[in-house]
Amino acid sequence: MVVELLGAGEARVYARPADWPDVALVDTDVHITPRSIDALAGFLPARWRDYVRESGVQSLESDLYPPRSPLSAMPGTRPEDGPPGSDLDLLRAQLLDPWRTRIAVTHCVYGVDGIHNPDWAVAMARAVNDWQHAEWLAVEPRLRGSVVVAAQDPARAADEIDRVGPLPEFVQVLMPVRARAPLGSRTFWPIYEAAQRHGLALAVYAGGAAGNPVTPVGAPSYYLEEYVGLAQAFQAQVVSLVCEGVPVRFPRLPIVLVESGFTWLPALMWRLDKNWKGLRREVPWVDRLPSEVIRASVRLTAQPIDAPDPARLGDVLDRLGSDRMLMFATDYPHHQFDDPALAAPADLPPDAMARFLGGTAHETYRLGEG
Amino acid sequence: MVVELLGAGEARVYARPADWPDVALVDTDVHITPRSIDALAGFLPARWRDYVRESGVQSLESDLYPPRSPLSAMPGTRPEDGPPGSDLDLLRAQLLDPWRTRIAVTHCVYGVDGIHNPDWAVAMARAVNDWQHAEWLAVEPRLRGSVVVAAQDPARAADEIDRVGPLPEFVQVLMPVRARAPLGSRTFWPIYEAAQRHGLALAVYAGGAAGNPVTPVGAPSYYLEEYVGLAQAFQAQVVSLVCEGVPVRFPRLPIVLVESGFTWLPALMWRLDKNWKGLRREVPWVDRLPSEVIRASVRLTAQPIDAPDPARLGDVLDRLGSDRMLMFATDYPHHQFDDPALAAPADLPPDAMARFLGGTAHETYRLGEG
Repeated sequence: MVVELLGAGEARVYARPADWPDVALVDTDVHITPRSIDALAGFLPARWRDYVRESGVQSLESDLYPPRSPLSAMPGTRPEDGPPGSDLDLLRAQLLDPWRTRIAVTHCVYGVDGIHNPDWAVAMARAVNDWQHAEWLAVEPRLRGSVVVAAQDPARAADEIDRVGPLPEFVQVLMPVRARAPLGSRTFWPIYEAAQRHGLALAVYAGGAAGNPVTPVGAPSYYLEEYVGLAQAFQAQVVSLVCEGVPVRFPRLPIVLVESGFTWLPALMWRLDKNWKGLRREVPWVDRLPSEVIRASVRLTAQPIDAPDPARLGDVLDRLGSDRMLMFATDYPHHQFDDPALAAPADLPPDAMARFLGGTAHETYRLGEG
Repeated sequence: MVVELLGAGEARVYARPADWPDVALVDTDVHITPRSIDALAGFLPARWRDYVRESGVQSLESDLYPPRSPLSAMPGTRPEDGPPGSDLDLLRAQLLDPWRTRIAVTHCVYGVDGIHNPDWAVAMARAVNDWQHAEWLAVEPRLRGSVVVAAQDPARAADEIDRVGPLPEFVQVLMPVRARAPLGSRTFWPIYEAAQRHGLALAVYAGGAAGNPVTPVGAPSYYLEEYVGLAQAFQAQVVSLVCEGVPVRFPRLPIVLVESGFTWLPALMWRLDKNWKGLRREVPWVDRLPSEVIRASVRLTAQPIDAPDPARLGDVLDRLGSDRMLMFATDYPHHQFDDPALAAPADLPPDAMARFLGGTAHETYRLGEG
């Protein structure tokens, strides 16, 4: 959290904690969004601009920040003319400047994965990519972006990656964890091949509107179940990606889990390792312990933290078996943590802390030092 | 594991480890199964006996123990005329006698949950219950049984529980983790009400053929993924049962997870607690931390163990926050553990060890001391 509600309209800007080491900070989870769907109109071909206008589409995003539910976004992050996360000046003043952020990796999904018409989805993905490049990434050198693709049509998704992947401001390709199919599926390999070709990572984010029931046993009753269940979707996707051999076949494609939590990962690695020992004949391309594959390929943004209290976070990191997997994140402008001190695990040794705050992200996204 | 393969047809019977305390041992996971579907014929009404014969149904169970896949069951557990787990004398000689088992809780599912015709499902459940009572539970006083129900028709499932629930040999009602819907669903409450009425537990077992995709993101490619994914199905069911308030509304109904593993449970409790704090308005009947509800109501059979090595099992038990949740199990005749020493966590204090080996099961199943 970077701001705190003081009174109507007021906000206090949080600064980077004074006791943090002086490393080039990388924030691996920052949300940006258009002020409205009209902001994308100029980036759509006439056919789809007309379609959006004539069919009365108001927005493709779910209402993440209802105005009367103030805790859905950090206080003070809502500009007058749009939702939280839609104003670059606010982002600079509330996040990039006070945290002295070297690089912020941004995400804008805009519901493209939920569109059933593949041609419209392809056009919207292209518009979102052109919009975020023109209005954010090309304007503010501290920002990096995520390529939105219409996985509904993997060949054209790969084309889109080939189109914008050479732009240095894009560092990853976004896929929803609640996808149409397990992400290891060969259906999606053209996307991964294109991502690797351009030195991009694959980012799997906590969301998705593909339409599968959100648990493996049908639709639950409450949003609480749906939200808690995101961790099970991430587990299924990690298992799929590993078992289908995506990290083996695309060895230069880092897999970044965004807002996945991470306390569930050690138990999953144990279970997958154990059963791989008995069933590895099914997946002969997985030639090492799945946990080794995961430690080598998977990275995770650290917010929201799903540890019970900061004191136990060290235990979780110990069980992960690697201090090169977690990456600092604020999840701006979401309202996830109450204290900047919770943004980093306590008591990390200095080199591990430096990796957490920036080193791992620099490697993952090949950010260089410039 | 109770037997070891020495040569063709030979087997060595394992005994209870000599250093175990002299408590009344309860084995909470023993599989029994009919020699063939013909064994159930005498327990079916004429209509369904004819239907089974005329339609050529060979078996309703998946082939758990292919004869040419010897490691699918412990060596020596297959009688000449049926699958492993179909012979009471073998069960006595290989399990009950050498382990000095006081009580063994048996499971026989027989694929009833996968039948789409609800009338046939009801008739098959009834036949399986009458068969297991007549040929196992009434014959061998060390055995207790699980009521099979056709949850396809919850009202008639409750009738079946009312019919056989008064028999003291039945201690729980079986539901598959891969159910037609989240198990907290009100659809199933008549079943839970009847179970509680007769002092039975609710057992959720690792299986089910209801037909939902086995991950929350669609069908995976490999059995390895499906098997590892059982833990995600258990997570979804625990969340559903707790959020729908089943433990609150049925406070005398223990919930037993059978072959679920348990290393995933601490992280799930953390995530559920944290998000319940923000979203509890949705589920006002959950008036305590979900982890407290889980610790009070949920019990787990300890095999197969999903910890990476026995040395780390103590850590997992510590994170569970209770030494009254896990119950000893052999999973006979499945082939899950290689050494009887792995059947119990190392270094448990004596009172916790006694609870693990029998005390918790005695309480859960109200086995008394007789």
